[in-house]
Amino acid sequence: MTSIKTTSSLFIVALAMAGLTGAVSADERLSKAGVEPVVVEQATLLRDNALKGTRAYQWVESLTTEVGPRLAGTEGEARARDWATTKLGDLSFKHVRTEPFTIEGWERGEERAAVTQPFPQPLSITALGGSVATGAQGIEAPVVLFENLTALERAPAGSLDGKIAYVGHAMRATQDGSHYGYFGRLRRQGASIAASKGAVGLLIRSIGTDSHRMPHTGSMRYADDIPRIPAAALSNPDADQIERIASRGEPIKVAMTLTPRFTGEVPSANVIADIVGTEFPDEYVVIGGHLDAWDLATGAIDDGAGVAITLETARRILASGLKPRRTIRLILWGAEEVGLLGGYAYRERHQANLRQHVAATESDFGAGRAWQLTSRVDDQARPLVDLIAELVEPLGIAPGATDAANAGPDLYPMIQAGMPGFRFVQNGQDYFDLHHTPDDTLDKIEAADLDQNVAAFLVFTWLAANSDINDWGWQSVAAD
Amino acid sequence: MTSIKTTSSLFIVALAMAGLTGAVSADERLSKAGVEPVVVEQATLLRDNALKGTRAYQWVESLTTEVGPRLAGTEGEARARDWATTKLGDLSFKHVRTEPFTIEGWERGEERAAVTQPFPQPLSITALGGSVATGAQGIEAPVVLFENLTALERAPAGSLDGKIAYVGHAMRATQDGSHYGYFGRLRRQGASIAASKGAVGLLIRSIGTDSHRMPHTGSMRYADDIPRIPAAALSNPDADQIERIASRGEPIKVAMTLTPRFTGEVPSANVIADIVGTEFPDEYVVIGGHLDAWDLATGAIDDGAGVAITLETARRILASGLKPRRTIRLILWGAEEVGLLGGYAYRERHQANLRQHVAATESDFGAGRAWQLTSRVDDQARPLVDLIAELVEPLGIAPGATDAANAGPDLYPMIQAGMPGFRFVQNGQDYFDLHHTPDDTLDKIEAADLDQNVAAFLVFTWLAANSDINDWGWQSVAAD
Repeated sequence: MTSIKTTSSLFIVALAMAGLTGAVSADERLSKAGVEPVVVEQATLLRDNALKGTRAYQWVESLTTEVGPRLAGTEGEARARDWATTKLGDLSFKHVRTEPFTIEGWERGEERAAVTQPFPQPLSITALGGSVATGAQGIEAPVVLFENLTALERAPAGSLDGKIAYVGHAMRATQDGSHYGYFGRLRRQGASIAASKGAVGLLIRSIGTDSHRMPHTGSMRYADDIPRIPAAALSNPDADQIERIASRGEPIKVAMTLTPRFTGEVPSANVIADIVGTEFPDEYVVIGGHLDAWDLATGAIDDGAGVAITLETARRILASGLKPRRTIRLILWGAEEVGLLGGYAYRERHQANLRQHVAATESDFGAGRAWQLTSRVDDQARPLVDLIAELVEPLGIAPGATDAANAGPDLYPMIQAGMPGFRFVQNGQDYFDLHHTPDDTLDKIEAADLDQNVAAFLVFTWLAANSDINDWGWQSVAAD
Repeated sequence: MTSIKTTSSLFIVALAMAGLTGAVSADERLSKAGVEPVVVEQATLLRDNALKGTRAYQWVESLTTEVGPRLAGTEGEARARDWATTKLGDLSFKHVRTEPFTIEGWERGEERAAVTQPFPQPLSITALGGSVATGAQGIEAPVVLFENLTALERAPAGSLDGKIAYVGHAMRATQDGSHYGYFGRLRRQGASIAASKGAVGLLIRSIGTDSHRMPHTGSMRYADDIPRIPAAALSNPDADQIERIASRGEPIKVAMTLTPRFTGEVPSANVIADIVGTEFPDEYVVIGGHLDAWDLATGAIDDGAGVAITLETARRILASGLKPRRTIRLILWGAEEVGLLGGYAYRERHQANLRQHVAATESDFGAGRAWQLTSRVDDQARPLVDLIAELVEPLGIAPGATDAANAGPDLYPMIQAGMPGFRFVQNGQDYFDLHHTPDDTLDKIEAADLDQNVAAFLVFTWLAANSDINDWGWQSVAAD
């Protein structure tokens, strides 16, 4: 299905591009996009200046160095908010504010595991975010191996009584990161599926593409009415090891200790800064990344990079002295990793004027270069998206799917409410080597790659904020 | 100096090779090497068959899976000896035996560190092998940064009173791994140098070339009459981080807890198997790798690979039915990592007949392909070494230094006693990415690379065991 969709989308795009450069005059093209020629000139200049070097790397360097780990609901996340409001204030943004909400807090504790038979040896694990504890004494149980989630789902009820389930399916590196959604279901839902068969614990092969002793954490959820069992990820080399040990045919036992704890109702917040529009101050073009990050690392690629790219985009527009017609809103989201909670809180708080969010996109797929633009807008807005595509094409970004209801995770709640989709897809080939591991640190980022993203965001933001088109297709293109 | 030496050595080698293929007849060449033509045919066949695929990968897979971590003096190392004696027995080696000795035991405990000011955040560290503990409460102290060991050495006495010294010099990846010796002095001696200035703890940038959150352990020694202070390595990204934090100009404090303990006198041993020579049973050609490995990983490249390469070399000779003139001795060394203790124990036990160890070499530089042959032998043995060089040249191995008193770490004690040097140098470009880290696991090894090493070892072993030359230059080429 995917390949058919892609092909037909590309075909349509090819026709559209042929039209742009052929029969349709430049004037007509801009007029259909609702954009004055000067706006295109401004966008081009903003884009080209960004390629000469931006401060994006400086922002991610500062956030990861001066704040470091910043798990949602912790002191670290609060320090990230202070960092953001201070930086935005220093940069002369007006209307810098936080929109607080509360979340159920969770913090990691000790995490240890070992094969106790037949070949005793330690394993490198990490608790999945939201897992219950084993208790300080830990658990020790025979392990039953499944090659994937489907096999676990097929296991008869009661067949795992008193056992630890291990599921070994492996995602692969892809440019668009699309394996994550499919294979990630194991992390998100595996514990309750295993528990429904009687398991007392779940171990999964990390949802990640590296081969280092770096287990990947990430959020999970328990289903109602099923016992909550502790769940952890093994690093890929450790998953290989447990499978090799199993291949000897002798029974395997694993001991596992996880002592995470729930910390009650704790504060989080979104940080917001506006560049107020001159003509339509109550219409918003939203960009942003998320401030929170998993506790195992300093969150350089997830999502310090997105914070840096979008903060720098807004800063460059502010510093240019150019005045947008509608308001450009930078949202640095809170509590993304633990369930898109900043996104839901924002939607709830802004329910009355959701449709005034004309266009929105988030940067939350690492620090790699953007290579594709996907969207889901109505016919009226299509010429504007095509114009954006034309202006980012020299950055190495080509049009992709035109039926993609995706604008980044924190915008998912608004997409659900009917918001049109728009997204620059970054190269994710290496993203899941680092994602949610201790290895998500600044040394993995190239400044010039961030600059390319800033250039693309400047084009999107400036055109969206200055076009006559103020409805990209709310509800008419509502998500499935 | 190094480059001049290399150039002149290569020049001499080029002359020698020109001689071999030119004026000197094939017969004369073999007769100078003390080798019958059939022996060359046998070595060539052994070599070429190995390239079709060996069991070397199978041995390292088995050792790393069924034994796993095997720190010197621990139950893990004892299980490695059991593994080796069982495997060697199953393969019908005769005279399989262990030669026990005792060592001062040391085991890792908890290891945690964090920046406590100005930007609180955890650090990824590991204790250096042989470090004293901080006590369970840990220590917290201001940190003073030095860019290298020389700068630390220049610090005035008393200038580090009550402080933790951090030294940040970084080794680089090289094909021959030669940075390790130079930069490694920080790990081996840094604690006592820091303590002599009053420091209460030492943190070093890992002696390693990766950029993962993987601190590198490795052995250290305390000088006499200087207080023993706890010492640990930071992963390279954490070392970058502490240097970035320092660049802000505010005082840094670090809290560090290390609870390793000394476990008293504990057993280790070398495992030995002989293929007894038909003519000269009391003359030995020695090959081997070391059985012990650091506790953080399963020791696949250090030195499961060397165990596998040399065990497979001996196995293939045994299985071929060929009978060597002198004895081929496989030594799987114990307690290498903690001070070459297996090597010293062997030298002491075999003091009476050291000179009957005609030629010896070890595989202990990972699982990469060999690319160079270095040696230090006298004029009488040079034609034999040249013949070995000629036969391994099709494997991509070229002659290197002819003044290299190096046969691998466990043979260093015998080299010190006057043994000639011979070594296949493996490609070490990636070796220090993994060396002494949790990441030294099987997934980093390619079977075909091991096979190439086996092929080279077969040539060395078979020619050395069957040549008339029984003195490669003992004492006349004694190490400096």
